[in-house]
Amino acid sequence: MAAGVGLRKVSIPSAVEIAERLAAGALSAREVADSCLERIGARDGEVRAFAHLDPAQVRAEADALDRHRKAGRPIGPLHGVPVAVKDIIDTATYPTENGSPLDAGRRPRQDATLVARLRAAGALVIGKTVTTEFAYYRPGPTRNPHNLAHTPGGSSQGSAAAVGDGMVPLAIGSQTAGSVIRPASFCGVVGYKPTYGMVSLAGVLSICEPLDTAGVFATTVEDAALVGTVLAGYDAADPRTRPVARADLLAAARSEPPAAPRLAIVRGPTWDAAEPDLVGLIDEIAEALGDEADAVDLPAPYDDAFALQQRLMKVGFARHLTRYLERGADAVSELMRAAIAEGAAVTAVDYLAARDMQTALAVGLDRVFDRYDAILTPAAPGEAPAGIEATGSPVFNALWTFVGTPAITLPLATGSTGLPIGLQLVGRPGEDGRLLRTARWLQRRLAEA
Amino acid sequence: MAAGVGLRKVSIPSAVEIAERLAAGALSAREVADSCLERIGARDGEVRAFAHLDPAQVRAEADALDRHRKAGRPIGPLHGVPVAVKDIIDTATYPTENGSPLDAGRRPRQDATLVARLRAAGALVIGKTVTTEFAYYRPGPTRNPHNLAHTPGGSSQGSAAAVGDGMVPLAIGSQTAGSVIRPASFCGVVGYKPTYGMVSLAGVLSICEPLDTAGVFATTVEDAALVGTVLAGYDAADPRTRPVARADLLAAARSEPPAAPRLAIVRGPTWDAAEPDLVGLIDEIAEALGDEADAVDLPAPYDDAFALQQRLMKVGFARHLTRYLERGADAVSELMRAAIAEGAAVTAVDYLAARDMQTALAVGLDRVFDRYDAILTPAAPGEAPAGIEATGSPVFNALWTFVGTPAITLPLATGSTGLPIGLQLVGRPGEDGRLLRTARWLQRRLAEA
Repeated sequence: MAAGVGLRKVSIPSAVEIAERLAAGALSAREVADSCLERIGARDGEVRAFAHLDPAQVRAEADALDRHRKAGRPIGPLHGVPVAVKDIIDTATYPTENGSPLDAGRRPRQDATLVARLRAAGALVIGKTVTTEFAYYRPGPTRNPHNLAHTPGGSSQGSAAAVGDGMVPLAIGSQTAGSVIRPASFCGVVGYKPTYGMVSLAGVLSICEPLDTAGVFATTVEDAALVGTVLAGYDAADPRTRPVARADLLAAARSEPPAAPRLAIVRGPTWDAAEPDLVGLIDEIAEALGDEADAVDLPAPYDDAFALQQRLMKVGFARHLTRYLERGADAVSELMRAAIAEGAAVTAVDYLAARDMQTALAVGLDRVFDRYDAILTPAAPGEAPAGIEATGSPVFNALWTFVGTPAITLPLATGSTGLPIGLQLVGRPGEDGRLLRTARWLQRRLAEA
Repeated sequence: MAAGVGLRKVSIPSAVEIAERLAAGALSAREVADSCLERIGARDGEVRAFAHLDPAQVRAEADALDRHRKAGRPIGPLHGVPVAVKDIIDTATYPTENGSPLDAGRRPRQDATLVARLRAAGALVIGKTVTTEFAYYRPGPTRNPHNLAHTPGGSSQGSAAAVGDGMVPLAIGSQTAGSVIRPASFCGVVGYKPTYGMVSLAGVLSICEPLDTAGVFATTVEDAALVGTVLAGYDAADPRTRPVARADLLAAARSEPPAAPRLAIVRGPTWDAAEPDLVGLIDEIAEALGDEADAVDLPAPYDDAFALQQRLMKVGFARHLTRYLERGADAVSELMRAAIAEGAAVTAVDYLAARDMQTALAVGLDRVFDRYDAILTPAAPGEAPAGIEATGSPVFNALWTFVGTPAITLPLATGSTGLPIGLQLVGRPGEDGRLLRTARWLQRRLAEA
């Protein structure tokens, strides 16, 4: 691999390692929890990744998990693994405040389905992570763990920062525009956005039903695959999920590609936003891959994807968040008020036209996925911008959220000011296993280069 | 049954009879076609049910069907049975003009899926029937066969009149507000609107995707069930259809109820529109059924169903028919132009709120269907109104279209001026067989009363 591009090293053990050592009795949930709490205690005063965290409760839950295991009872694939959860996702053990003072102290009566699935798999929900206001643009206090003067990205900023800093091996976020893939890039971690509809969003703040997707932050592709397997599945409470067989994504991620993968390098309709670091990185990777990758242009209709994604999202804001204006418009950011007003003005006909294009652009990608295993494309315009007043641009994410493809951020490089830069690998909807397998192949392939 | 309420007699053989006699070789498709053509020739100058009819082509197709059968090749369940098709449904053998001069001479390249299914079952598509303009309010020239000075209803006016006059045993229509159930009542025939999504609408003019439903006009419940069985099924070209097993609706319709059915008599939120004939009819039937039926009131949210159905429909007009304004606004009726303008002004948020209520009201009916086999409710405010400048009110239909329930008009009575009055039986979505079985039971039950 050429100069300036290097695989980032991660210091905390992966979830897979922790789970294996716990299952073997070589480690206790309490030891793992204590080591996370120690790192959080040392660092979170500056990083500010957590919105809610109760160390005493965490230790008690860890002890209960250890008693369960020591009693010889069956344990799940995430037994004792700490997971941080974005604060728009309902938890029965912590408040869920949606990044808004209007929800201060809000206590859900029950866990979101995805939290219940994590707990059923034995995970320890260690705390709630900072989200931007209603998962849109007004940031919370979180800082980039690699440089506190920079944003960690958004909206899942606390989740990305907590994993990026080594406070926890895993965190859950969500993406309606670019809220998983972009902060993962800025914080130097793996960010995995599963196929639209794969993970239930019952109990998660609705921003925009046709776009909202839960996502995972992890330090390895295998960890993301393990959590994806746990989270996936039909939920009668979320009509977007389908009653289909659950795949073992970890096994798929670990498998060897049956043939040498081929990648489509898509710079995409928003390439003008690319910063020099990104331009150089894509060029270097294209060169390193040689015949294994082709540059592919998307046809003109894809130019509209960003605007159409924004239209749907703003209608979603108007639909779901207008009630907050009624409760206290002054406590809602000006950015959000403007977005709600824009969304409220969209006509049904324009909304439905965007929905139609959503289907058309998704179907149109078959042409690419028929020839390539995955699309390699930017995750963000470059390094995390300086300052924490804004979270950077989702301009390289909106298209892939719009069409519902699975996507993963791979922390492949370091930029010119020493901050991480990830690239995004995008797969065919429903073929998450193949995407994760291709992601692991790409990591190995570039490490050899 | 009390005075003033009597089962209507029908003179033409049913589709089931025709199919049986044809299969037995006791009748030829040509003989059946000739007898339909004769009736059409004698009557259609006045009734004006047909928009397109080519007797020479009909005879040629009938002869081909006879040759096929005589060659000993396998025949379908509708072999040789003439079916008339509403002129918003694409046919490769006839123009499809959507009731608009702007589509004069429009020749589809292929049959709608439902037409292809009819042909695959051996049916003879005899001609195209008059529709109101784009299946909305501006009527065509069709008259009520029972009294030419009265409307046959709309929008499937030619289909209802052709069956009501005995020109054909079967016709296909569609319903977005009340376009099958109401004209069936006015024309004294059975009108069957299957569960939403049961019949593919690929190749049918889209008015409003969340409401549009194909329907059947017939002289008996069994005929409607036979055609429903043929039309039902998954079609990749229509995402509203589902890949589920096809039920034999004819067998279901003919089966005995496992227990004595119980009916909910729902006068409904628009009961103020009921004319004295209808009020008397419902009272008489309630009395005849005694303990087998209960009067059931729907809770307040159902009061909004009509307005919400109209909102969705008008958005549909704006979405699908604005292109006609561009091609020639003068050729579009003032009523339609006003509806398009109304639909264009609906916001996405209001549209989505109506879609939410659609789900909520549908789910809310479980309370009724858990206790009753079917809902008995008006099909129209009374007899067909005088004049052919308007098609009568869909006020008793919009709710049931909105919630996607299967429904059937049973021609149960004659009103004070001698015109038919039907009542509507409504079933639980997906339980079309049970609805048709209950409909046959009700007919027998009232004939005994």
